[in-house]
Amino acid sequence: MKAKILTLLGITAATVALAAEPEVPYPAGYRDWHHVKSMVIEEGHPLYGAFGGIHHLYANDMALEGYRSDTFPDGAVIIFDLLEAVHDGNAVTEGARKVVGVMHKDASKFAATGGWGFEGFGGGDPTNRVVGANAASACFACHQPQKAQDYTFSRLRD
Amino acid sequence: MKAKILTLLGITAATVALAAEPEVPYPAGYRDWHHVKSMVIEEGHPLYGAFGGIHHLYANDMALEGYRSDTFPDGAVIIFDLLEAVHDGNAVTEGARKVVGVMHKDASKFAATGGWGFEGFGGGDPTNRVVGANAASACFACHQPQKAQDYTFSRLRD
Repeated sequence: MKAKILTLLGITAATVALAAEPEVPYPAGYRDWHHVKSMVIEEGHPLYGAFGGIHHLYANDMALEGYRSDTFPDGAVIIFDLLEAVHDGNAVTEGARKVVGVMHKDASKFAATGGWGFEGFGGGDPTNRVVGANAASACFACHQPQKAQDYTFSRLRD
Repeated sequence: MKAKILTLLGITAATVALAAEPEVPYPAGYRDWHHVKSMVIEEGHPLYGAFGGIHHLYANDMALEGYRSDTFPDGAVIIFDLLEAVHDGNAVTEGARKVVGVMHKDASKFAATGGWGFEGFGGGDPTNRVVGANAASACFACHQPQKAQDYTFSRLRD
């Protein structure tokens, strides 16, 4: 009985610890934000496993400020919206949504990962968090060399 | 001298006739409009000659109303923004802008082409009109079968 209670306490403590991780909010309404740019990643590309398909980047108003100055203010949000790329009849069209990737700037809340919170919502489902506590290894590790652009890869185009 | 004057008058008359054609305005600020969808058209596709590359569709607020009801109100504008598709390293990235295609709804002004004015701005240059008076053959001929969707091909997606 004592062991069972300790186990339960252990689970509770772990749950509390997880809940205390800073969480990236789902970016409601991002499909109305500014479309920054797009790209298709095809089989054979080194990022195909993680990001194969057609992706679109969207930025909220604060992220647009950031792109212009290379310093993104708190509240800036950049979306990496990844859809299946359907190759058929010498055309590539958009298929189902694979993931909605989010970078959310909050310098104090996400200090451990360059001031950015990283999250992925599998299939675009706000309840399906596919990054969670793994942001440092799953996301920031690749973004870290981009420090001069505040850890972003994309640039604004006309 | 008389001939010269008549020639000048002739040129003036032609200019007046051209100016009387209803003109589609350049869609200032369209890059901030709602991104509807995207597609890549590759070599071998029947539309490659005209529309090869990666294109993005954008819609202003009135066009969004139209997509939802299949009837586009006057003032609805849909953009077909065509960029070069650069194939390299198992990826497709965006190159230079080829043309900004515009459908601008004004039922009375453009009655001859389904209530839509069609124009293309070569290279995205507001002064480089590549459709002009040829909208009926160069654009509307292909859109005409789409009458049930008010002559549009695209549909809104999430």
